[in-house]
Amino acid sequence: MSDLPRRIRIHEEGPREGFQIESASIATADKIAFIEALSTTGVPQIDCVSYVDPRRVPGMADAEAVARGIHRTPGVRYTGLWLNVRGLERALALPLDLIGAIRVTASETFSMRNTGMNVEQTFAEQRRWLALYREHGIAVEWGYVMTAFGCNFEGEVPVAQVLRMVEGIFSVAAEAGVTLRGIYLADTVGRATPKSIEARVGALRERWPSTRIGLHLHDTRGTGLANAYAALRMGVDQFDATCGGLGGCPFAGHKGASGNICTEDLAYMCEEMGIETGVDLRAMVECARMAERIIGHPLPGKLMRTAL
Amino acid sequence: MSDLPRRIRIHEEGPREGFQIESASIATADKIAFIEALSTTGVPQIDCVSYVDPRRVPGMADAEAVARGIHRTPGVRYTGLWLNVRGLERALALPLDLIGAIRVTASETFSMRNTGMNVEQTFAEQRRWLALYREHGIAVEWGYVMTAFGCNFEGEVPVAQVLRMVEGIFSVAAEAGVTLRGIYLADTVGRATPKSIEARVGALRERWPSTRIGLHLHDTRGTGLANAYAALRMGVDQFDATCGGLGGCPFAGHKGASGNICTEDLAYMCEEMGIETGVDLRAMVECARMAERIIGHPLPGKLMRTAL
Repeated sequence: MSDLPRRIRIHEEGPREGFQIESASIATADKIAFIEALSTTGVPQIDCVSYVDPRRVPGMADAEAVARGIHRTPGVRYTGLWLNVRGLERALALPLDLIGAIRVTASETFSMRNTGMNVEQTFAEQRRWLALYREHGIAVEWGYVMTAFGCNFEGEVPVAQVLRMVEGIFSVAAEAGVTLRGIYLADTVGRATPKSIEARVGALRERWPSTRIGLHLHDTRGTGLANAYAALRMGVDQFDATCGGLGGCPFAGHKGASGNICTEDLAYMCEEMGIETGVDLRAMVECARMAERIIGHPLPGKLMRTAL
Repeated sequence: MSDLPRRIRIHEEGPREGFQIESASIATADKIAFIEALSTTGVPQIDCVSYVDPRRVPGMADAEAVARGIHRTPGVRYTGLWLNVRGLERALALPLDLIGAIRVTASETFSMRNTGMNVEQTFAEQRRWLALYREHGIAVEWGYVMTAFGCNFEGEVPVAQVLRMVEGIFSVAAEAGVTLRGIYLADTVGRATPKSIEARVGALRERWPSTRIGLHLHDTRGTGLANAYAALRMGVDQFDATCGGLGGCPFAGHKGASGNICTEDLAYMCEEMGIETGVDLRAMVECARMAERIIGHPLPGKLMRTAL
């Protein structure tokens, strides 16, 4: 009846997603302590910082200091996010793990606003990234389609447009002689429903049956775990999530900010259904409570409010 | 592939679920204003009060005043909850809609703690209710199995035990010559996962194929809408929910309190998937914001944080 995976892999994105929307007032030492605590929860990968313009994102002005300050736990990968060549160049100078990615945005309007590039320019930019990856010996893993479910400017992005973006990703990857691990669909603004998950995952499966699919989901409208469940049913086994549901602060007047799906809530649901996650729920809940103390306002995670 | 219903019916339980866990300090007039605002959102039924001991539940000490104060909107049913004969007798004296129900609890321990009766005593009590329903000409609609997914004391309640409770319900209904509209399974403490939803809904469907099923879900561990989606896939078309996710106040230090699934988030997910709910999303979001002002702390609903 369904195709639930036996285990899933969760990439923890709490530090980057959470701290990039906070003001600059969070101490670098607290960010580092949080990342080091997350290192003990069993997640294999932690996204720590983004290399963005500190004038636009003051919460990431200390990205270099955070990246340099982390005491690494063996077996955990520590990553950062770049959205342009300048960001990638900053990443090259730092001791975090460099994991190559191809990133495109399905909504032309959102792409222009978020990166200043239209879709065509974005693919040209990806060729520059791929050249730099090759030059620096960086392995390329996933292709990401941002706003794969729509955006606030254009509404729903058609499935056909998502397929064109994936075609484009495979095309620039092939030009560069790169074999991708799979394709990530990102619900950047939290518009997805189980039905739109099924439509997009189904369309990718039909066209590229052996391609692994990952999902980056936000819980802006409360559908996050329902969307994850719809994807699990179709065998999706790779998810981004954030400790405590970091990534939005709906309770601090940041209207429209969209928290990601919550790592420990996702892991709880999976484990209760017999799907292994590798996540230590108690340790992750402790991290969520720590994150709440650090940012100074409530997080939307649910499991963290229970006695466990 | 799935059996999504064309439309669902949502019973709004916000006033009862929400106010019964608050302290006694909320003004009766605010409760009435909230119920009257909910009357304009398109929900066909609003659970307004519970007839419980005010020493145990001080937030319901003004149940009579609330019940008498509501200006009714035609076409909306206004209900109250009783858990024993004494509660039912209070309901009989009030102008709310009297809708007969059979209520049993699958967990013996939870039943003792919540009602002071074990399972056998509960069925005897149901016979008393049915006699009173007949005496007062009250139509009986649903049979409810509380803690159908487990409780904090006994852990998971086995599917076989749920089936025994449903058998018992049908048995006392038949003795009284009553034909039920269907069976409600209540995840009273928020333990369900999509898998346990499928197991119980599937078992009921197999045994009683033509019986309609309703679900009363809590979102204690974040799985609420995923559970609702699993049920929708199986054709379940009757849900309880609460405006704004009232019913718990996870952000006010009430550890372990479990909010219900949020009416407008559920309705949003359904409407986006083409399932009619009859709920006016904007009006329901306005009610959720009103509820937040009344109770004085943030609610867990998500759609209410968006621009809509």
